[in-house]
Amino acid sequence: MDMIKNLTNVRGIKCWGAHTGIKSLRRDLAIIYSDVVASAAGVFTQNKVTAAPVDLTKKHIADGKAQAIVINAGNANAATGEQGRKGAEAMAQTMADELGIDKELVLVSSTGIIGEPFPTDDIVEGIKENAKKLSKKSNAGSFAANAILTTDTYPKEGFTEFDVDGYEVNMAGIAKGSGMIHPNMATMLAFVVTDAAIESGLLQSMVKEAVDKSFNMITVDGDTSTNDMVLVLANGKAHNDIIKTEQDPGYDNLKENLEEMMTHLAKQIVSDGEGASKFIQYEVKNASSIDTARKLIREISDSTLVKAAMFGRDPNWGRIIGAAGNAGIPFDYTKTDLYIGSDKNQVKMLDQGVPQPFDRNMMKKLLRESHIHITLDLHQGEAKAVGWGTDLTTDYVMFNSVYTT
Amino acid sequence: MDMIKNLTNVRGIKCWGAHTGIKSLRRDLAIIYSDVVASAAGVFTQNKVTAAPVDLTKKHIADGKAQAIVINAGNANAATGEQGRKGAEAMAQTMADELGIDKELVLVSSTGIIGEPFPTDDIVEGIKENAKKLSKKSNAGSFAANAILTTDTYPKEGFTEFDVDGYEVNMAGIAKGSGMIHPNMATMLAFVVTDAAIESGLLQSMVKEAVDKSFNMITVDGDTSTNDMVLVLANGKAHNDIIKTEQDPGYDNLKENLEEMMTHLAKQIVSDGEGASKFIQYEVKNASSIDTARKLIREISDSTLVKAAMFGRDPNWGRIIGAAGNAGIPFDYTKTDLYIGSDKNQVKMLDQGVPQPFDRNMMKKLLRESHIHITLDLHQGEAKAVGWGTDLTTDYVMFNSVYTT
Repeated sequence: MDMIKNLTNVRGIKCWGAHTGIKSLRRDLAIIYSDVVASAAGVFTQNKVTAAPVDLTKKHIADGKAQAIVINAGNANAATGEQGRKGAEAMAQTMADELGIDKELVLVSSTGIIGEPFPTDDIVEGIKENAKKLSKKSNAGSFAANAILTTDTYPKEGFTEFDVDGYEVNMAGIAKGSGMIHPNMATMLAFVVTDAAIESGLLQSMVKEAVDKSFNMITVDGDTSTNDMVLVLANGKAHNDIIKTEQDPGYDNLKENLEEMMTHLAKQIVSDGEGASKFIQYEVKNASSIDTARKLIREISDSTLVKAAMFGRDPNWGRIIGAAGNAGIPFDYTKTDLYIGSDKNQVKMLDQGVPQPFDRNMMKKLLRESHIHITLDLHQGEAKAVGWGTDLTTDYVMFNSVYTT
Repeated sequence: MDMIKNLTNVRGIKCWGAHTGIKSLRRDLAIIYSDVVASAAGVFTQNKVTAAPVDLTKKHIADGKAQAIVINAGNANAATGEQGRKGAEAMAQTMADELGIDKELVLVSSTGIIGEPFPTDDIVEGIKENAKKLSKKSNAGSFAANAILTTDTYPKEGFTEFDVDGYEVNMAGIAKGSGMIHPNMATMLAFVVTDAAIESGLLQSMVKEAVDKSFNMITVDGDTSTNDMVLVLANGKAHNDIIKTEQDPGYDNLKENLEEMMTHLAKQIVSDGEGASKFIQYEVKNASSIDTARKLIREISDSTLVKAAMFGRDPNWGRIIGAAGNAGIPFDYTKTDLYIGSDKNQVKMLDQGVPQPFDRNMMKKLLRESHIHITLDLHQGEAKAVGWGTDLTTDYVMFNSVYTT
């Protein structure tokens, strides 16, 4: 019985996750390996300060090819200077040696504490010991999903199978965000593998678009880390005709599934907010452009006033409109309809900017739900966007005032 | 996209997992709730010392009915005397009050440190705060699966759907074992829910048989804890005709799936051995009785000599036969065939007790695999049994000599 499908259910993919000693008791080293060279694409942190593994992986993925990803948790290898740069190189070189592949086919990723010397020896030793354990068994996928976590309270995973031009394609992903208790360690990592065949340049643009719709539309605390990284491998083992253009059959379905996978993983990251009490979905409809819609969502979902109001079950449309007005884009609230409610039932609070009467008791009840939906209809165009965030709780503030260095 | 199916995909089941503060940063309170009263069955630790939640749950499940399970991790509520007994009662009473159901319909379970005062107030507070968050969303299932863990390095989960007399039935389970780093905290818990309709007395005998084939056939360190507990709820929401006898249609398929679910969870517990390097499957064939076959497996899989040989990649059939001879049952090695190898390729080492020539290099290579299979064919009857264990590594010994109180 194949009770949980994960990375190992993608053709040609083996993985493993192990404890090497960087973290005291938890798994801290994950390996994902494709038995053939795969098309590879990546999206990296926009933070000006980038960690050593980000720099190295950008270099190795430049040719659009990769065969292995090795990830350690517990030490971010950021702000580690030359020692860290050598450590990232050693990770890639050791992995390559153990697998008998070119070093440039290995992508590396790290998450954890920033600014501490990178434990290169331990990790090199761990890679040597664990490379031979790469496996297609279901547990190996769970091990990998858990080995990339830091303060996350549960692993983020997804698996789906779908049709590409008549061929059955598998896709699986893992991700990590962070409990909100230590936002300074809130590196976001995601790794997706599929056996679809697609040309790497096209994969890169597809990945970029999917990240813009998913990981870039979530907010936990508004910061990006030095280590954020989303990597996708497509190894072609599904044997569909290689997708080379957006017009090729299967392109649309692959793209849609990649977006759904990333959205699924991104929403799990948001929902893992120990200090948060609510998961909030924001939707902006009928905007003049997608860019406008996204900017509005980011501004609203990052607003501490809006977030605190949601914690207090206060349908404070004024703060939402206020935040929207701060987005630095043309926004006419007199044309805007605003809805607030649960995921099942939303109440129109503004009709073309005019406040609507509403049942306060019912609204309080709706906002007691753990999933809140807020929708703005701009009546300005046809673009729309969706994003996800949390509320701001007294717990969050308490955690982050108590647990500091 | 329903990317990960879990507890929440069983009809009528809601759940949640949260952080209440017993564990420093991780989720430590899980709730599983059926919106109708379910048939309930349980199997409990054989340890003479039982924890307060075990005593209470045995009492509450005696009538074969339950509607909610509440589990805390971090404190086992064992060896806590009257204070602990009151704590377990308070868990059940608070859960019942929040859900508006009878206290006797609530089952409680605890895992964690033994002998420390039970943090009743924190848990009562946590239950009050989280009861209203019970959800059918997929994440809620992940939260619950993660909230029951202690030293486990990954959550153990399973989901399956199958046919019972023409009705689609769902079944999901979660479990915890432990990394082998702290075997003194190695409580084994498993919770399975299904929407099948089955009479509770029959469910109890089915559960007992399934546990004997699965959780009772694994060994990590040979001890049973004060808190071990396997609970099953069957709420009938699949609307099949209630199964009342072993002859009823659907009985066999439900039983088979329950056994597979428990075996799946049990194998995951074994595989989560940080200090172990190998997962070993033992099979005894053609024994005179199932009981004999099981006893042999338990003796062999618990043998430190056999386990150490497996770590050393030594196909030491002498130790296996030696351990079998210690099982306290009639065992004639001169009639026994013995096979050792990987999960893909096993080599006959003994033919009717006679050592067979074998390729030492090939054997070393086979035993380098992380999954080892050992099979004994007793040629004495028709009964068979399967069990699972680990090797004994230098790491295990080191961990358990260093990390003590």
